[in-house]
Amino acid sequence: MFIDKLNWRYATKKMDPAKSVPQDKVDAIVNAISLTPTSSGLQPFEVFIITNDEIRAKIQPVSWNQSQITEGSHLIVLAAWDNYTEARIDAVVAQMAAERGGLTDTLKGYYDNLKAMYLPREAEVNYQHAARQAYVALGFALAAAAELEVDSTPMEGFDPDAVDEILGLREKGLRSVILLPLGYRDVSGDWLAPMPKVRRPLADLVTHLD
Amino acid sequence: MFIDKLNWRYATKKMDPAKSVPQDKVDAIVNAISLTPTSSGLQPFEVFIITNDEIRAKIQPVSWNQSQITEGSHLIVLAAWDNYTEARIDAVVAQMAAERGGLTDTLKGYYDNLKAMYLPREAEVNYQHAARQAYVALGFALAAAAELEVDSTPMEGFDPDAVDEILGLREKGLRSVILLPLGYRDVSGDWLAPMPKVRRPLADLVTHLD
Repeated sequence: MFIDKLNWRYATKKMDPAKSVPQDKVDAIVNAISLTPTSSGLQPFEVFIITNDEIRAKIQPVSWNQSQITEGSHLIVLAAWDNYTEARIDAVVAQMAAERGGLTDTLKGYYDNLKAMYLPREAEVNYQHAARQAYVALGFALAAAAELEVDSTPMEGFDPDAVDEILGLREKGLRSVILLPLGYRDVSGDWLAPMPKVRRPLADLVTHLD
Repeated sequence: MFIDKLNWRYATKKMDPAKSVPQDKVDAIVNAISLTPTSSGLQPFEVFIITNDEIRAKIQPVSWNQSQITEGSHLIVLAAWDNYTEARIDAVVAQMAAERGGLTDTLKGYYDNLKAMYLPREAEVNYQHAARQAYVALGFALAAAAELEVDSTPMEGFDPDAVDEILGLREKGLRSVILLPLGYRDVSGDWLAPMPKVRRPLADLVTHLD
């Protein structure tokens, strides 16, 4: 059951470096990220899948030395667009037109309006909006990993400028948003593994307006 | 298969008002939201589940008149904390201490550091951070709905101040972040239903660093 899998997952603090996530499971997690719905279908982010030991060893010290970055077998970095641009939006429209039977007036009008709204805004506002979409993708990646019984640890605790520099993201018009190591829990060495999951009571979290 | 369910889902544009999502499925979607991992475990948001017709009729005109708001059987509103406060963080720490064997020095130290970082920041910065967590919850809600073959439509297109006013959110220290109607697709009336899903080629979306 999906909910059981979500209960099974936790922010793994120690991973077993001897275990590697099989390629078909990594592919499924990447697929889930690709299938994430995003605002106006822009998918305003890119995904880096890092197995390279040298690169992960560089990222670890700018990420509070969190051990999962090198103990896991794969490190996912979600990087959002640093801004919305005409070229980026036009590329989305061109693909939609190609795959959905041409550039209709409705399609063109929708994205013309979007460009009129987004393009005059400050880059920072657009980046923040793009980053939110990457957080939906994070939700899909976490859910997919749990479904496949792959452990993962979502991380905001890193120096984004340093990660951008290591991966050359700024030159590509990207900014790092989240790190997500994938691997398998080392229960014997993980202080969090035996702890019960703590969540606010549903009565505090949820209001029903019937 | 989970990936098949994610392929099945789409941003439903027209829902069948005659069909209602059963309570057990709504409960499971709420459970998924509750199980969403959040930064430092703060769960800095609340969830409103609205079936009330009058309230939904008020929200619709401030949401570009999107029909799913009233055609669906349930409207979920995710509302983020407007700020991090000492009281809110202390409540989380108290619950963790109660459920994980007491207030250890490690637990206290971690959240003391967090308070030293968050409390001096501007409310807007903290709200933006809280809102990002609500987007992860959106990902979990969308994935859970898809898994249960419940249709849903994530919406950013609404006037947040107006929705805050209708639901009295500001008095509760909350700000509306996302709307998510739940229901069942009306394929005959939905222009998007027959369209192929468009996603950027994986080769553009994903970079492998091996």
